Amino acid sequence: MRTLWTVVAVFGLALLAEAEVKTRAVEYRDGDVVLEGWLAWDDAATGPRPGVLVVHEWWGHNDYARKRAEQVAAEGYVAFALDMYGKGVLATTAEEAGKLAMPLYKDRAGMRRRAKAGLDVLAKAPGVDATRLASIGYCFGGSVSLELARDGADLKGVVSFHGGLKAGGPTARGAVKARVLVLHGAADPHVSAEELAAFEAEMNAAGADWSLVKYSGAVHAFTNPAAGSDPSKGVAYDERADRRSWQAMRLWLEEAFE
Amino acid sequence: MRTLWTVVAVFGLALLAEAEVKTRAVEYRDGDVVLEGWLAWDDAATGPRPGVLVVHEWWGHNDYARKRAEQVAAEGYVAFALDMYGKGVLATTAEEAGKLAMPLYKDRAGMRRRAKAGLDVLAKAPGVDATRLASIGYCFGGSVSLELARDGADLKGVVSFHGGLKAGGPTARGAVKARVLVLHGAADPHVSAEELAAFEAEMNAAGADWSLVKYSGAVHAFTNPAAGSDPSKGVAYDERADRRSWQAMRLWLEEAFE
Repeated sequence: MRTLWTVVAVFGLALLAEAEVKTRAVEYRDGDVVLEGWLAWDDAATGPRPGVLVVHEWWGHNDYARKRAEQVAAEGYVAFALDMYGKGVLATTAEEAGKLAMPLYKDRAGMRRRAKAGLDVLAKAPGVDATRLASIGYCFGGSVSLELARDGADLKGVVSFHGGLKAGGPTARGAVKARVLVLHGAADPHVSAEELAAFEAEMNAAGADWSLVKYSGAVHAFTNPAAGSDPSKGVAYDERADRRSWQAMRLWLEEAFE
Repeated sequence: MRTLWTVVAVFGLALLAEAEVKTRAVEYRDGDVVLEGWLAWDDAATGPRPGVLVVHEWWGHNDYARKRAEQVAAEGYVAFALDMYGKGVLATTAEEAGKLAMPLYKDRAGMRRRAKAGLDVLAKAPGVDATRLASIGYCFGGSVSLELARDGADLKGVVSFHGGLKAGGPTARGAVKARVLVLHGAADPHVSAEELAAFEAEMNAAGADWSLVKYSGAVHAFTNPAAGSDPSKGVAYDERADRRSWQAMRLWLEEAFE
């Protein structure tokens, strides 16, 4: 296998050099609200590819979400970083972010509708195989992705990175069609042991196919370098957990899209 | 990446066709006790490779453990399926298995010594890079692998498949050198939520680098087809969890041996 991986590395570099991730902003609507997302795809790819929705943190549709969409595109998928708040709406403080996210946490039907508006854009994007879709998300975006799964969205997979796991209500048996992967910082003070247990019970009651990964020492927002480097604050970047969780996501999507 | 993986697949098949896993029984001792393990390696590999210890279930050193060692060898490592009980000692009923495993669970020093006798064989085996060793194990063997980690064995990685997580006592801060991965059936009735929580607390107190993966619906022995197909018995094979946990192990070892 070592020899194999050397071969892979050499050929991989050659191919990646050919690949080029292209992007463009996409304006769309949820009712009267104008939203702006970010489409990313590998220009060297041909034929229909799976589509991956990327849901931003509570800050809103920012450069971090766009960068993640571009990374997903580099994996060979078409990615769409949606917008849950409205074109140009971005929080700069936690207080502002809370004011933007909270109404959607409280109105799960509205959260689902807003997310599905983004999913529709992805499903219709050029090069997307609409029968093979997934949703990934960060913090708030993890919660949104889970909400799509609970809603029975036609997704092959859902991945939550350090997302909140609270349900708005019970999830019906058979409702969840997506394979659900939760990537969780074991030291995340924003998701309690009770919340984890309730989530497992909810998913089991729904008969969902789920998996949960805990990363030691990792706290909230562990994938985002902008979260700083002090875990004692409960929010911090963790390079190790970032790398491991990305690999776990890759495997999950690979299986989901088989 | 799709194109890349096609290239990988084509070259991979060509290389795998060359690879051939060789095996041989190895007799060794722990004090007066004669043990017999099973060494497996890829004959096409050249130069020192990482070594992986494979620790059997409570049944003893059986064909299942040997098969796993061969699978590990096919990944490009030298594998040694050790023997914790004695040459030819195999349980055929759960009662017998309990009588073999229990004395070692109760005598953790003895468990560590017996496991290290196997680790020594691996470290000295032809083609092994003794600076890059890991231990994986199944059920009882997962517990044994964790015990090696607690003992501060010079291992890069430890992986437990549906293993018991109970410690014999507190683990000292800094003792655990190995990255510890626990692959756990979320519905395993033999490992309680309290045991999981105690394990996390123990590993955190030790300052260990650990990760834990839960697989929905999977119960005890989920990797072993001989465990049957009825999860209501608390012991059953789960093809999905088997496949996913093997992939998780591969990534873990890949990182550990970097």
